[in-house]
Amino acid sequence: MLGAGRSSAALITYLLKVSSKNGWKLTVADADENLINGKLKNHPAGASLIFDINNDAQRQKEIGAHHLVISLLPPHLHILAAKECLNLSVPFMTASYVSPEIQALDKEAKEKGILILMESGLDPGIDHMSAMEEIDKIKAEGGSLTSFKSYTGGLVAPESDNNPWHYKISWNPRNVVLAGQGTVKFLENGIYKYVPYHRLFSRIENIEVEDAGRFEGYLNRDSLKYIDLYGLNGIDTFIRGTLRGEGYCKAWDCLVQLGLTEDSYTIDLPSDASFVNLLEAYLPAGTGSITERTCEYLGLLPQSNEIRLLQWLGLFDSGNKIKRLNATPAQHLQSLIEEKWKLEASDKDRIVMIHYFEYKIGNQLFNKTSSLVVNGDDQMNTAMAKTVGLPLGIAAKLLLEEKINLTGVHVPINRELYYPILRELEQEGIIFKMKNL
Amino acid sequence: MLGAGRSSAALITYLLKVSSKNGWKLTVADADENLINGKLKNHPAGASLIFDINNDAQRQKEIGAHHLVISLLPPHLHILAAKECLNLSVPFMTASYVSPEIQALDKEAKEKGILILMESGLDPGIDHMSAMEEIDKIKAEGGSLTSFKSYTGGLVAPESDNNPWHYKISWNPRNVVLAGQGTVKFLENGIYKYVPYHRLFSRIENIEVEDAGRFEGYLNRDSLKYIDLYGLNGIDTFIRGTLRGEGYCKAWDCLVQLGLTEDSYTIDLPSDASFVNLLEAYLPAGTGSITERTCEYLGLLPQSNEIRLLQWLGLFDSGNKIKRLNATPAQHLQSLIEEKWKLEASDKDRIVMIHYFEYKIGNQLFNKTSSLVVNGDDQMNTAMAKTVGLPLGIAAKLLLEEKINLTGVHVPINRELYYPILRELEQEGIIFKMKNL
Repeated sequence: MLGAGRSSAALITYLLKVSSKNGWKLTVADADENLINGKLKNHPAGASLIFDINNDAQRQKEIGAHHLVISLLPPHLHILAAKECLNLSVPFMTASYVSPEIQALDKEAKEKGILILMESGLDPGIDHMSAMEEIDKIKAEGGSLTSFKSYTGGLVAPESDNNPWHYKISWNPRNVVLAGQGTVKFLENGIYKYVPYHRLFSRIENIEVEDAGRFEGYLNRDSLKYIDLYGLNGIDTFIRGTLRGEGYCKAWDCLVQLGLTEDSYTIDLPSDASFVNLLEAYLPAGTGSITERTCEYLGLLPQSNEIRLLQWLGLFDSGNKIKRLNATPAQHLQSLIEEKWKLEASDKDRIVMIHYFEYKIGNQLFNKTSSLVVNGDDQMNTAMAKTVGLPLGIAAKLLLEEKINLTGVHVPINRELYYPILRELEQEGIIFKMKNL
Repeated sequence: MLGAGRSSAALITYLLKVSSKNGWKLTVADADENLINGKLKNHPAGASLIFDINNDAQRQKEIGAHHLVISLLPPHLHILAAKECLNLSVPFMTASYVSPEIQALDKEAKEKGILILMESGLDPGIDHMSAMEEIDKIKAEGGSLTSFKSYTGGLVAPESDNNPWHYKISWNPRNVVLAGQGTVKFLENGIYKYVPYHRLFSRIENIEVEDAGRFEGYLNRDSLKYIDLYGLNGIDTFIRGTLRGEGYCKAWDCLVQLGLTEDSYTIDLPSDASFVNLLEAYLPAGTGSITERTCEYLGLLPQSNEIRLLQWLGLFDSGNKIKRLNATPAQHLQSLIEEKWKLEASDKDRIVMIHYFEYKIGNQLFNKTSSLVVNGDDQMNTAMAKTVGLPLGIAAKLLLEEKINLTGVHVPINRELYYPILRELEQEGIIFKMKNL
């Protein structure tokens, strides 16, 4: 296993457990030995390896000495590991998106009889598996899908939800700040639709999930590549999005409208600047207070929920100093939310996922949903770490048990993968609830 | 002279005139001989040259055979010509912005005693010269500038203004569509201010110019580099912007809000698509007409001026077919405005420029403006071609008359350049009007 950082705890725990049982060995490789040892805790089935992926000799030697490589490295480093795996005929797995570089390894992997399994975490990962199980069932009943919508959110559990944004950070905070930048593309009623970034967080869907409450869904950047992958060519509506608590999207939209999520330039601020100075740089000059002028610029009332949420972040507080000079607006915002939306040691996070299926059998229209709610145990064994790590761990176990015969580059849309993984996830408490509408 | 395209006519006419008078020869070099001959018209002082800037041998031979090179090539090609000029110790002039690559030639140009004169057209060009003449005068009176604002627009003359946008295209239409993309930065009341692109066209200034009427000014992308160049360090307010007719900016903002100016992706449209299909791709699904849903999405009334202007462009007309498939939204929009905003053979364009100077002498505050209005003669001798070409032509004449002693990379902010150029421009009818407020 390459990488022992955020989200690795649940995967390491699972792999140690199945290794003990099967007489396997787990090597956890990272540049930081403390990170590894904090998670292996001297477990007899575990070995630690101080590792540099860019060291050619070490990479070749260590990959060649193992039967399987699982990478939790930053996505751009996967290709180095994957190519080495292919050279040495070692299978390779990650939770990351298939990049064009990885896809290009497909032919050689098939020729060598090696599996490169991608997108096998939560989103992408569990979303593919749970959607494909239902889609295959609907098709087996003679149904034809007319609409598929899917939303996932990494949120905070209700018992730890003590801020008005209803959000705490359980994954990469930079991705939270830059979410949705670019242009979103989706399919609605047979028409390709586009949403520019500055409209994304105001064009939201209200979503209710059983046992979890009401949410807002904003659109993911590019959903359309999955239409073909899911075998849904000709479908009328296909949407993938992200869930946030009620009120989040409209308040986040204020930050987008102001320009505070921009990451393409460093902003000039006085030394000793506060977040009021940052805000001031985006407001027209005027005589009112910073709060009044923000309200006026955004067309909001001072007592609106959006303004309350911006106030709670400390944007109107001249005592709230910026953390460093020479940063982009997005970097300033990131440092602010890392502090304000910190998942504390005793906090529990929560994963919520929902799929909406609309399909026809003959002339009759059917609607059903499939939804998932998973709570974290604590700051280490987060719901995020469990739902990203366990599918990978189970896929690894199945491969080492020689229960997977696929070769080439894959994502888990085949029954051979999703069926056993979803069943074992159920045993771990990751259980979808089906509902006919 | 390299390049005989748009905006070259007035410059060629001027250079032929001064060449005849002084016994000089003008070679006009372009890949298209018809473009050259249409402008040289067998003038005895002119020679045509079929030229490829990327042909190393030809570039070296031809530049080496001349005493001065003026480039109207696309901006990214200037560096090829400038480097060759420097190798061969030939002076070089353009109307384009100083790029970092060009700036890097400064030291070698100084060592060789060669002038590389940039930003010597209209904007940049005449704006620098006319602003610097006033700034130098104010300083000579013991004044200290507190605010400088400058706006320029390439517009349509009132007698040819028969469309509700009050705009026709007298320069590169692609630049019209992409205007302002990125983030704008300026200085206001001592504070650096930033405006994201999606707010640019709604954050406008109302501007009145004597003898020309009322306009809207939107901000140019980066004004701040000129503070230092103009010798105005410590000034409170420094703004450069672009003028448009009344109503233009708010209606253009609708196109920005919809996403129709985006240029980063190709949009998927049905073959035989109209501009209604293009618009539909950016609107939420709904039951009303395309006009009604556009009004709702933009928060506008059907009888608003903005909707009237969009309607006039043909955005709501399903008979108005797109010109080609596989284009970005910005490319579709460009093809539309090229047709709708065409400067016809009999049309006259108009250049409007205004500077606002605010300064203190002792404790007393003064305000004055300096403004320029130039009308085109016809579609060929446009106000744009005259105001871009003549300053370059005059600078060329002064250099060949050995009246300029500057070496290295320059823009026309020195009295040695601006004084004689502005006086000769006055003889050509390009006359600033001063006004104390």
